[in-house]
Amino acid sequence: MTGIDFTVFKGSSTGQIVESKTHKESIKPDEVLLKITHAGLCGTDMHHKTSDMVLGHEGVGLVQQVGSQVTSFKVGDRAGWGYLHNSCGHCDECLNANEMFCPERAMYATANTDQGAFASHAVWKAAFLFHIPDSITSSDAAPLMCAGATVFNAMYLYNVRPTDRVAIVGVGGLGHIAIQFAAKMGCEVVVFSGSESKKEEAKSLGASEFYATKGASKLEIGKPVKHLFVTTSQIPDWNLFLPVLAPNATIYPITVSEGNLAIPHIPLVSKGLTIQGSFCASRGVHVKMLRFAAVNGIKPITQEFPLTAEGIEEAMAKLEVGKVRYRAVLVAGR
Amino acid sequence: MTGIDFTVFKGSSTGQIVESKTHKESIKPDEVLLKITHAGLCGTDMHHKTSDMVLGHEGVGLVQQVGSQVTSFKVGDRAGWGYLHNSCGHCDECLNANEMFCPERAMYATANTDQGAFASHAVWKAAFLFHIPDSITSSDAAPLMCAGATVFNAMYLYNVRPTDRVAIVGVGGLGHIAIQFAAKMGCEVVVFSGSESKKEEAKSLGASEFYATKGASKLEIGKPVKHLFVTTSQIPDWNLFLPVLAPNATIYPITVSEGNLAIPHIPLVSKGLTIQGSFCASRGVHVKMLRFAAVNGIKPITQEFPLTAEGIEEAMAKLEVGKVRYRAVLVAGR
Repeated sequence: MTGIDFTVFKGSSTGQIVESKTHKESIKPDEVLLKITHAGLCGTDMHHKTSDMVLGHEGVGLVQQVGSQVTSFKVGDRAGWGYLHNSCGHCDECLNANEMFCPERAMYATANTDQGAFASHAVWKAAFLFHIPDSITSSDAAPLMCAGATVFNAMYLYNVRPTDRVAIVGVGGLGHIAIQFAAKMGCEVVVFSGSESKKEEAKSLGASEFYATKGASKLEIGKPVKHLFVTTSQIPDWNLFLPVLAPNATIYPITVSEGNLAIPHIPLVSKGLTIQGSFCASRGVHVKMLRFAAVNGIKPITQEFPLTAEGIEEAMAKLEVGKVRYRAVLVAGR
Repeated sequence: MTGIDFTVFKGSSTGQIVESKTHKESIKPDEVLLKITHAGLCGTDMHHKTSDMVLGHEGVGLVQQVGSQVTSFKVGDRAGWGYLHNSCGHCDECLNANEMFCPERAMYATANTDQGAFASHAVWKAAFLFHIPDSITSSDAAPLMCAGATVFNAMYLYNVRPTDRVAIVGVGGLGHIAIQFAAKMGCEVVVFSGSESKKEEAKSLGASEFYATKGASKLEIGKPVKHLFVTTSQIPDWNLFLPVLAPNATIYPITVSEGNLAIPHIPLVSKGLTIQGSFCASRGVHVKMLRFAAVNGIKPITQEFPLTAEGIEEAMAKLEVGKVRYRAVLVAGR
């Protein structure tokens, strides 16, 4: 045995996607070798396209080989993974099912940058892989691995309750899944989008109300909302959105950008608002997300591209200009 | 009967404290007439000293007259009040004991501005007055009516738990009470102050650790904290404080200032932090605060001034330059 060689797609200083090779001596006893079939494209990948690292963290594939100690997967199983690759297993955070906050966590862009979802294969710890429910196609599963897990985590961990009035700002990769999750949790779902162009689609995904915000100086939505999920890459105009929040409402700025999040101080206090940072899901929550999606027929709306350097660049170019409706999935050739 | 006339102290456009008179035709069936004996001076009063309104909202006095329907107070009782004077009683917020968020709430500086704690007398709804426990002097009770209720509310409502590691930023009117509450709740209390000057006092109030922050480029505190109560009027340097927060920690920016609260976006998300706006206490929580203070011997450190225009101005001048240790209380002449 001369080890495992596989194809990977990396960022580069010019932003061009570069095809390369990664070599692994062998798979360890607790690892799994996957042949990647599908990979979602996330906004975070765009941040790293000028980095010399393998891109992609919404991976789905078929198990090709399992380490000697792996009992949870067998050859031929479908498996997916997301942002998190490993954690120490024995710190306070790990012991309390908060492994995403383990000080030794291994995650996308900061560890194992020699492999990712934009590749022919990958070798991961079995403990950080997820079985894909039979009713979910691999193409639909890919966007759930980060986009789905991120929005579900924010809703599930911070106690969105059935009957709550929930607002989703932005109908995109995260937002179009958030609408479905909230609707299937039994919430009233109020959707805010720039223009009217996504109104019918938002309604078909489960939105009870839809408001176009571009040019609006005041939002008239009747009853205020208890949760505001900001899924746009830009933080919204708080002067527009704070008045539609109920007392004790929570704001979830789900997307991440450099710099400061700035919010008017007085309404924060006088309305008793919460701003809740929400990171990627723990494995326990990730599994619940997949079950919830399977049981409730949550289905991302995807556009497929070939899992090649050209395919990745084409998908990125479309995402850059906001033309992906609503999640790009890169599909490996047979 | 020709009605009730009493002395009040108001702000004015120049910032000078002006003595004036307020007239009430009579007290209503659900109201109480108080002779004010003590009034705490709060930072919020400073914001309003250039407004034509009666100042003061940490009031304590003796009941002099009760309306025909009042059963909860009798003549001679001690009673205190804080920020909130009234609410509708039938909206969702009122019915769920969140009357501080009632859309029709009446509170300091926005309603009943013809009377306040800086006065000889006041007429308030009995339902928004609090009995003072026997073991608490009226002078000590006054600062509990806003400062005490504000910090207790933030800790109690948002689930500070015994054993939690709690940080208090600033040792002043709010901070010196916050240290005592957290210590008596069984927390590890980490205090941050500009200089070392308040170290011994902070320790005697219950601080387990004390760190001077002026000039520090990094805070070395060992185990990170789960709650950060910001009681200073300035928002602290987040680059200094975010690294000492545990994953899932909560920040409580208790004091209020105009403009934006700005906080680095990436650590907010990647550490799963919560920013919790906390307003004044509901009556239920206010009563619990008073009981907690009585049972645990919480005692504000106060400096007394006469409840006169000159006394108010002197106390305000000291507060302005940070020379009050730690809460000014205005005391009526006999």
